[in-house]
Amino acid sequence: MTDIALIEAAAARMAGHVRRTPLLNAPLLDKAAGRRIFVKAECLQVTGSFKARGGWSAVSALSPEARKRGVIAYSSGNHAQGVAHAAARHGAPCVILMPSDAPQVKIANTRGYGAEVVLYDRATEDRDAIGARIASERSLTLIKPYDDPQVIAGQGTVGLELAEQAQEAGITQAPVFVCCGGGGLSSGIALALAARVPGLKVRTAEPQGFDDMARSLATGQRARNPALSGSICDAILTPTPGDLTLPILSRLAGPGAVITDDQALRAMALAFTHLRMVLEPGGAVALAAALFAADLPDTVIAVATGGNVDPATFATALDRFA
Amino acid sequence: MTDIALIEAAAARMAGHVRRTPLLNAPLLDKAAGRRIFVKAECLQVTGSFKARGGWSAVSALSPEARKRGVIAYSSGNHAQGVAHAAARHGAPCVILMPSDAPQVKIANTRGYGAEVVLYDRATEDRDAIGARIASERSLTLIKPYDDPQVIAGQGTVGLELAEQAQEAGITQAPVFVCCGGGGLSSGIALALAARVPGLKVRTAEPQGFDDMARSLATGQRARNPALSGSICDAILTPTPGDLTLPILSRLAGPGAVITDDQALRAMALAFTHLRMVLEPGGAVALAAALFAADLPDTVIAVATGGNVDPATFATALDRFA
Repeated sequence: MTDIALIEAAAARMAGHVRRTPLLNAPLLDKAAGRRIFVKAECLQVTGSFKARGGWSAVSALSPEARKRGVIAYSSGNHAQGVAHAAARHGAPCVILMPSDAPQVKIANTRGYGAEVVLYDRATEDRDAIGARIASERSLTLIKPYDDPQVIAGQGTVGLELAEQAQEAGITQAPVFVCCGGGGLSSGIALALAARVPGLKVRTAEPQGFDDMARSLATGQRARNPALSGSICDAILTPTPGDLTLPILSRLAGPGAVITDDQALRAMALAFTHLRMVLEPGGAVALAAALFAADLPDTVIAVATGGNVDPATFATALDRFA
Repeated sequence: MTDIALIEAAAARMAGHVRRTPLLNAPLLDKAAGRRIFVKAECLQVTGSFKARGGWSAVSALSPEARKRGVIAYSSGNHAQGVAHAAARHGAPCVILMPSDAPQVKIANTRGYGAEVVLYDRATEDRDAIGARIASERSLTLIKPYDDPQVIAGQGTVGLELAEQAQEAGITQAPVFVCCGGGGLSSGIALALAARVPGLKVRTAEPQGFDDMARSLATGQRARNPALSGSICDAILTPTPGDLTLPILSRLAGPGAVITDDQALRAMALAFTHLRMVLEPGGAVALAAALFAADLPDTVIAVATGGNVDPATFATALDRFA
């Protein structure tokens, strides 16, 4: 089980390899929002998303023998890059299964980190069967994207840094919006903040139509999304909350926020103008919640989780909203 | 005269008000470049450029009486925002003279910080005459963009941080490319690095056709640019090196690099893809030099000076080079 000790141990293993990202704010963003918004800039993380943390945590926690055999991961992109980066730096072979319709930039980057990318067709092929066969043939260790204690611990290091940075900025009470797919980052941050600054309370942010976590938290019953595609927020379209993450968030998180694609694009445009940061749609929903959710206090924190976006999608955000 | 003591004093005055920006790198950027590139991300500075430092340094160095009367600055944008931000936080009235063809985002942002913006026509009106009249009527102090010891000292704080950050990364020998207009930032950084890590040597980067500093350094004779517009690098189109900055750079800087507009756009696209940062053309020429200059060593540092760019210009960089 992930707890604060496992998160601290992950932080120690990744020191010097994974970046301590800044907590940014901007006077003109605050003015546009009508409140103070602080943004934890994980888009500036070494692979362009927080997934570098969970990947590093999981790969570095393997036995030397398992590392030598190698790792495998399934991912539409950011988890792939995080695992590929960590595996390369540990000298571990790495296979990544990616849907053939994943953003080109993510496929190219994953290969750039040295991973072997195996593409599959979402509609006609069985990812799990392909992955199981390859893993078995080569004795690879599967690194799951969120339902893994060491991955959650790695993502939780965002919360350790945030606790320090928020206190330095004088903030001890605020909602902390976190972009949420399976809930690995949200639950890791929630554990870290509960241990360090309990007044900072995680609230998940999800795309409209893919708000399985918000509904699960609201009803106490695990919810599933009716579809697996149909939002531009490709990084965080998961079918249902993780087995490990839902209980943590049920205990520690506030109500989830739900964001339209247009709100995500508007948040990307505002981050471009006022923070000079590149966000991908799925990495912008937490900032969108900090901007557009109802009944917010004077000070809000958002975790900007990733910036691996195709130029055309980014240009759309600028064209429509900047 | 600006020296290391004046730079340290400026750093002390701006602590907590101006951001310590990160020194970023990215494995895939290094791979694309064929060398290690470290980027000092001043585009993440509070006003979106390093000019927040010089503005803060100059305004905070004024007497209480002068601050109460207020300040005036001439600027196409980034210096305007830096001075406006500093003046607002010091409760000082602030007038900014801007050319009416300055990027809209810079005019809007300068007003957003609370400054009174006076627009003039570059072709038909005499900026200096307008400014002198307003300054005299209201007893305002003129904050020059680079030829001012306190402004150079403020910009020099980039060098203090860079000296620490480079040493933490194990770098003690490298060229440090700096985007150069009048030379305030370049000369401030050169003074700080000469005092702290002399193996880090400033090289100016300028747009083709506006390489007055490179030519002045090469010949030992002050050079002037034939034109004042005609490059997309609007932030750094100055007629000739500053009276204070040229002697400093003649003593401390290596040869200047000259960058085409297309190279600046390519650097913006690479920063988008690999660093997830927004750069303006004039803020990208140092990175362009680190990517495209001839005869570079294995490790190069670039100061990314600003990110206040119109969406259309940014979209052009993405469309053509991302």
